[in-house]
Amino acid sequence: MMAPRRIRLSERAVRTGEPAISGMMAEALGNPNLISLAAGFVDYETLPVQETREAVEELLGDEEAARAALQYGITKGLPSLRERLAKRLAEADAHPFGTAGYTPDNMVIGTGSQQLLYLLSEVLLDPGDIVLLGHPSYFVFMDALRSSGVSCRTVPLDADGMRTDLLGELLEQLRKQDQLPRVRMIYLVSYFQNPTGITLSESRRKEILELVEAFSRQHRIHIVEDAAYRELRYDGEDIASIRAFDGDGQTVIHLRTFSKPFAPGLRTGYGLFPAELARQVEFLKGAHDFGSGNFAQHLFEILLEKGLYDRHVKALRESYRTRRDVMLDALDGGMPEGVPRTHPHGGLYVWLTLPEGMETGPDSTLFKAALEKGVMYVPGEFCFVASPDCAIPRNCLRLSFGVGSVEKIAEGVERLAQAVRECL
Amino acid sequence: MMAPRRIRLSERAVRTGEPAISGMMAEALGNPNLISLAAGFVDYETLPVQETREAVEELLGDEEAARAALQYGITKGLPSLRERLAKRLAEADAHPFGTAGYTPDNMVIGTGSQQLLYLLSEVLLDPGDIVLLGHPSYFVFMDALRSSGVSCRTVPLDADGMRTDLLGELLEQLRKQDQLPRVRMIYLVSYFQNPTGITLSESRRKEILELVEAFSRQHRIHIVEDAAYRELRYDGEDIASIRAFDGDGQTVIHLRTFSKPFAPGLRTGYGLFPAELARQVEFLKGAHDFGSGNFAQHLFEILLEKGLYDRHVKALRESYRTRRDVMLDALDGGMPEGVPRTHPHGGLYVWLTLPEGMETGPDSTLFKAALEKGVMYVPGEFCFVASPDCAIPRNCLRLSFGVGSVEKIAEGVERLAQAVRECL
Repeated sequence: MMAPRRIRLSERAVRTGEPAISGMMAEALGNPNLISLAAGFVDYETLPVQETREAVEELLGDEEAARAALQYGITKGLPSLRERLAKRLAEADAHPFGTAGYTPDNMVIGTGSQQLLYLLSEVLLDPGDIVLLGHPSYFVFMDALRSSGVSCRTVPLDADGMRTDLLGELLEQLRKQDQLPRVRMIYLVSYFQNPTGITLSESRRKEILELVEAFSRQHRIHIVEDAAYRELRYDGEDIASIRAFDGDGQTVIHLRTFSKPFAPGLRTGYGLFPAELARQVEFLKGAHDFGSGNFAQHLFEILLEKGLYDRHVKALRESYRTRRDVMLDALDGGMPEGVPRTHPHGGLYVWLTLPEGMETGPDSTLFKAALEKGVMYVPGEFCFVASPDCAIPRNCLRLSFGVGSVEKIAEGVERLAQAVRECL
Repeated sequence: MMAPRRIRLSERAVRTGEPAISGMMAEALGNPNLISLAAGFVDYETLPVQETREAVEELLGDEEAARAALQYGITKGLPSLRERLAKRLAEADAHPFGTAGYTPDNMVIGTGSQQLLYLLSEVLLDPGDIVLLGHPSYFVFMDALRSSGVSCRTVPLDADGMRTDLLGELLEQLRKQDQLPRVRMIYLVSYFQNPTGITLSESRRKEILELVEAFSRQHRIHIVEDAAYRELRYDGEDIASIRAFDGDGQTVIHLRTFSKPFAPGLRTGYGLFPAELARQVEFLKGAHDFGSGNFAQHLFEILLEKGLYDRHVKALRESYRTRRDVMLDALDGGMPEGVPRTHPHGGLYVWLTLPEGMETGPDSTLFKAALEKGVMYVPGEFCFVASPDCAIPRNCLRLSFGVGSVEKIAEGVERLAQAVRECL
């Protein structure tokens, strides 16, 4: 007798489906003439081959250093790299190194910042807990939250990022409904948000902290600051992180990655945590993998030390600024009237709002027309999570200028503009 | 008013404590004269610096290949590497490639095999579920299980590995108690087990599969075959895996790693899963990290293709065989009568059983005497999980011959033997 084939999955696995974006990606890979303005990949042409060569040569040229990099590391990550990163972060946020949680002990290195987000949600969230998100938000984290079984509550954005007046109202409403004890975290992409390209203004940064302070009653509500795009700024000066305003360093988790500003293939991210959370994340990470790739961490240590990393980021900014300008020019020249867009000062994304009623979803006329003309975008509805707080607009879309030549970007936008005109 | 500092952790985080072994490791690092026969690290001196150099040179010498390695990969892992690994595994298990689940689609690459173990436990286990383990077992996975909130039931080992007669009795007992629906998996280290060095015999491999077949009623019970040490064999010929006897490939998950046979710092492991589980693990891994280090995977592709990997494994076997022999000789020459040990034909570990009543725990007289003489071992009790099925022996210990020179190994064993004599 054959045993029954039925697999009994965990509750988490039952909640974890195929990512919404998978089908689209398969479509893109199957069509070589398609210009994808959808992928949040980094640009292939600018990947730092030369910088990596120099760092690897240095690392493997020293027998002792090479062996250390090939051996197990520690779960939290390479101490010298954590120190260097904590120092850089302290400097960027104008905090003295070693104070207010800007220390190597508060730093954990992960397999991309995505892993740190996942670990954090495992450490803080039980099914039925509440997470507050921007509306729209980063859709991959929304997948992770679905897997956690939490409820999402949403707060609209404007040109300055999450609307703190509405955040305050929502928190007050949750308080009245006696739901505050279940509110665990507010998740924000604070610089050049994915998907809108919007940066949270400095005054909003402070206001969000004040709100969290005021509404942290039985326990502390955490702010998860995903600052993946912070270094990819094309206009103006860097501004201090939300973390910078968190005096005692007990509220904000500041997450960063080397994927966007350097190379995703080295799969390394890092985060500054409140001390107790750093410990808990470390323990759980021990069960996950006892530490992310040690070899890659040793490479980053050299890349930072020798200035190779900063050299690359500088060149990358130039390159992405040009691409962004090409995309914005093409949009302004090609799109019909009445299609407002964001103006990102960094990152990889532009957000378009089409006329009311022009749907952008994967089954929409526009999406099909665009595919037919050979261009793909991310339907805006993928970036919104269902909640009792906000309706999901069906007429938005996300474009990325991260991948492909400037000619392709211009051509892709032109194709999209044609599709939009046809659907008017 | 300051917000309260209390952090409300998830149920999982509350269950996830500091690994038992951490305190010991800190002790070892703080004492440079200590010979650690405890660490399951791989040998520093034999780490494959030259092989890595050759592979990196090849990879970074080709601009296109280098960029592909620095870009994002796909969640499941590099397709060409998965194909190569599925082929090698099919060959080792004498199965035609592409049949019975020996396919690239069934293969998932992880951040070490540890991550695959963790993902698997997230996909299959809910709190209150039951996992069957050898007694003793691999303690790091026991930490992950504690974090999952499952109940462990245990089955003693003898020289042929897990005792199938007792496994059958336990399953029958669980059936009578109507607990079979909660039994999700049996976890085994099938080659040169951590911590005992014992290999599961071929007849037991088949018997375990038959038992699982017979007791898989409402759902399939899975066998998780951790084959981390398979390639580190020092005597005799490789034997087929448990997976090889799983005709339809629906029951066994076969997990492997490049950490032990090559370099832990590259943090790459792989596993062959039943198709439905491969999908579920892939989805969840998408939420964890969208794929393990792509650069390291490209390196392994070259290391395998150029024979550099096999060359290293061959040299490593020679080196570890010598170390094992030195350790066994030192034990046989130095230990008093009445201290039976295992004879590992591979892997990194020897298991000692001291006279009844001679405790080995971290607070024991022996452990302290050993530390005083400058040698550390892993107390056997760390390798047993509490269960209603078996008592936890207090007089066992694990030694590793993986790290340090042969002189250090001999000296370490001599120090331990002195400590044992003093405690007699």
